[in-house]
Amino acid sequence: MSVVTVERKILEKNDEVAARNRALFKQQGVFVINLVSSPGSGKTSVLERTLQEVQNTVSVAVIEGDVQTDLDAQRVARFNVPVVQIVTNGGCHLEANLVRDALSRLDLSGVQLLVIENVGNLVCPANYDLGEHLKVVIVSTTEGDDKPLKYPAMFRKASALIVNKIDLLPHIKCCLNELEGNALAINPELHVFETSCATGEGIAEWSEWILERIKTTRAAESIGVPV
Amino acid sequence: MSVVTVERKILEKNDEVAARNRALFKQQGVFVINLVSSPGSGKTSVLERTLQEVQNTVSVAVIEGDVQTDLDAQRVARFNVPVVQIVTNGGCHLEANLVRDALSRLDLSGVQLLVIENVGNLVCPANYDLGEHLKVVIVSTTEGDDKPLKYPAMFRKASALIVNKIDLLPHIKCCLNELEGNALAINPELHVFETSCATGEGIAEWSEWILERIKTTRAAESIGVPV
Repeated sequence: MSVVTVERKILEKNDEVAARNRALFKQQGVFVINLVSSPGSGKTSVLERTLQEVQNTVSVAVIEGDVQTDLDAQRVARFNVPVVQIVTNGGCHLEANLVRDALSRLDLSGVQLLVIENVGNLVCPANYDLGEHLKVVIVSTTEGDDKPLKYPAMFRKASALIVNKIDLLPHIKCCLNELEGNALAINPELHVFETSCATGEGIAEWSEWILERIKTTRAAESIGVPV
Repeated sequence: MSVVTVERKILEKNDEVAARNRALFKQQGVFVINLVSSPGSGKTSVLERTLQEVQNTVSVAVIEGDVQTDLDAQRVARFNVPVVQIVTNGGCHLEANLVRDALSRLDLSGVQLLVIENVGNLVCPANYDLGEHLKVVIVSTTEGDDKPLKYPAMFRKASALIVNKIDLLPHIKCCLNELEGNALAINPELHVFETSCATGEGIAEWSEWILERIKTTRAAESIGVPV
């Protein structure tokens, strides 16, 4: 028995389901973000701020992933968006089949943006494609500027990096240049945003970028250009 | 082929190796801590502060676990303690066999305290016994007060909780009572310490407790009392 073989089979199976999810998203015209970070970096807070910013422009739905509790789904539901909570019961990441099951409880018609908030974990979710258009990784300033070097896979696979909690910079030892430089050394294609959910700083820039991505992706998909 | 079965076999195998590690630690009279937390909660900083505090009283060795880099081992080596870095190359937690291999590069004779700093991950390391005497979980105030509810396994299996970065409390929304109450609801036996590695607050209390645990454990083990 080889653990590596089993793991490869799990990942292959996951990729098959992810491809079916991706086809469904394309068919429905839904742009999908897989939001990943350590526990407590501010995924839900960034999502709340983003909802405030984009809700008048695009129709949004949310899938929440957590090891336990539906606390995050409760927070997001206050914004009157459709939300489904996946509780993994100890599982350390979302897999494509969990998202597929959640989709059966979510009416995607008319939805233009689906945000999947992954389990708080900077390691495991990097390996599991959910069928999303892009991964967005959040790192908070309080976690220290060495995180991209220590957890490179997530930064390599992400399209955007949100550096959150920049309002705390005066009170901590964290060099933004160092943090962002480390991330860009891992992945020079990363789009970097600096945000604070306490003050709202940077949320407009990030939201503008994501709205633009939705627009160009929809336009490309509608004429059959691979994205 | 059942994934669950494979996983159980992996855990059983891990427990066997952990039992052998534990027997070795007992034979050598070494007290062992498995230090766990999210990325960036301050495991290495707490360890540095603890080394300053206890180094004159007990002889310490360190095993560092990271997905990539030996940055943490470099930090700890400055304290002139023996340190071995385990790089998991993508692995999301330490397993007993990795610790066993690291032990072959560490001279335990005369060592009274071995600190194993696990990979930054609040989920997966909870499932893997390394042979340690106790798990200590760190959560930082910036991660929010709901973390014990959302990641309960780690808090259930830990003997002590260090709430770190309390110096940032004036600048963030985090209620210590709520955070600690949530943790104690999961595990009423938890010993709770509040620390700041920026100011050094609380490090003395935590260090005193751990020195006392080493003393009582060594006394009990030397007369054959199970601990």
